[in-house]
Amino acid sequence: MKELIDAINKDGELRPGGVVLVSNFLNHRMRTSLIDHIGEEFYRLFKDTKPTLILTIEASGIAMAVMAGRYFDIDVLFAKKSASKNIHDDVYTSMVRSYTHGTVFEVRVDKRFISSSDRVLIIDDFLADGEALSGMIDICRKAGAEVVGAGICVEKSFQPGGKKIRASGINLHSLAVVDLNEDGTITVREEE
Amino acid sequence: MKELIDAINKDGELRPGGVVLVSNFLNHRMRTSLIDHIGEEFYRLFKDTKPTLILTIEASGIAMAVMAGRYFDIDVLFAKKSASKNIHDDVYTSMVRSYTHGTVFEVRVDKRFISSSDRVLIIDDFLADGEALSGMIDICRKAGAEVVGAGICVEKSFQPGGKKIRASGINLHSLAVVDLNEDGTITVREEE
Repeated sequence: MKELIDAINKDGELRPGGVVLVSNFLNHRMRTSLIDHIGEEFYRLFKDTKPTLILTIEASGIAMAVMAGRYFDIDVLFAKKSASKNIHDDVYTSMVRSYTHGTVFEVRVDKRFISSSDRVLIIDDFLADGEALSGMIDICRKAGAEVVGAGICVEKSFQPGGKKIRASGINLHSLAVVDLNEDGTITVREEE
Repeated sequence: MKELIDAINKDGELRPGGVVLVSNFLNHRMRTSLIDHIGEEFYRLFKDTKPTLILTIEASGIAMAVMAGRYFDIDVLFAKKSASKNIHDDVYTSMVRSYTHGTVFEVRVDKRFISSSDRVLIIDDFLADGEALSGMIDICRKAGAEVVGAGICVEKSFQPGGKKIRASGINLHSLAVVDLNEDGTITVREEE
């Protein structure tokens, strides 16, 4: 998606080692028109999969998920993060490891809000190690819901998440892919 | 806002003691069309204040803030919550007490993303004790930005936040107001 790639190149902070900071337009201060166009692009990519529900994870996935939900005219459910293991049995949970923060946290959704009749499109802002996405796929599996696709804004090709998720058969699309070159520089490109 | 009031009455869980649960359509599973109309209503209420930035707080304020931002065509900044006191000096912070959870947490925004030239519209899903809203107002004050308004989806009239914030001179509007009656029942109504 050219608009997103251009924004990353122009306004993102690309640091050696593959660190990509987009907090000035994507996941802290959010450029609303860009987020809207991202939602529209997810609609274009996934409309034929006929999702009935969008699943994302708090906090930075919510904006693009809701914008996409507006084009699909379907509800959006966001998984909540919790440091402590849940003691209720009315939620689906999955454990997610954060390599960035060196922690493990639980993601959870209320069992009433996702069912075996749902066709779920998962949306998130970043895909690196794939832990958050795997956690959401796990929650769908526990609910008996079908994952019809996964839409990611920025995928880091040099971390294993994208390869792992695609190998599992998930219909994954990323709007921008970040490569880490041998000289330590970064290239941002369209998905192949 | 009739659509929101009807949704609370029809689909919300109204429990004795003034507990209002709307996690099935507003702040966990989100009814996208309703959130869109909420954004449009905030635009109608606040367009004459000419905001340059919307400020909200993660996670459940983000959806309606982004939808409103789409109508205003301005950026949306969300304050992040943290359990630990921040050690950086590149963020504005404010301490917020959660009466619900019996905890104090810090909210923070990157100093680069709000400035003294900003006219800020604050948006959030709930207003009860007013702690989160006060924290966001405090962050605007620290940044030297003007708060031109505050838009709330659901205000609990029997908790002190609304009265406190209005008394401070903030241009506050709530789309639905929940009263706690003497017999313990709940009434949902338009703002007076």
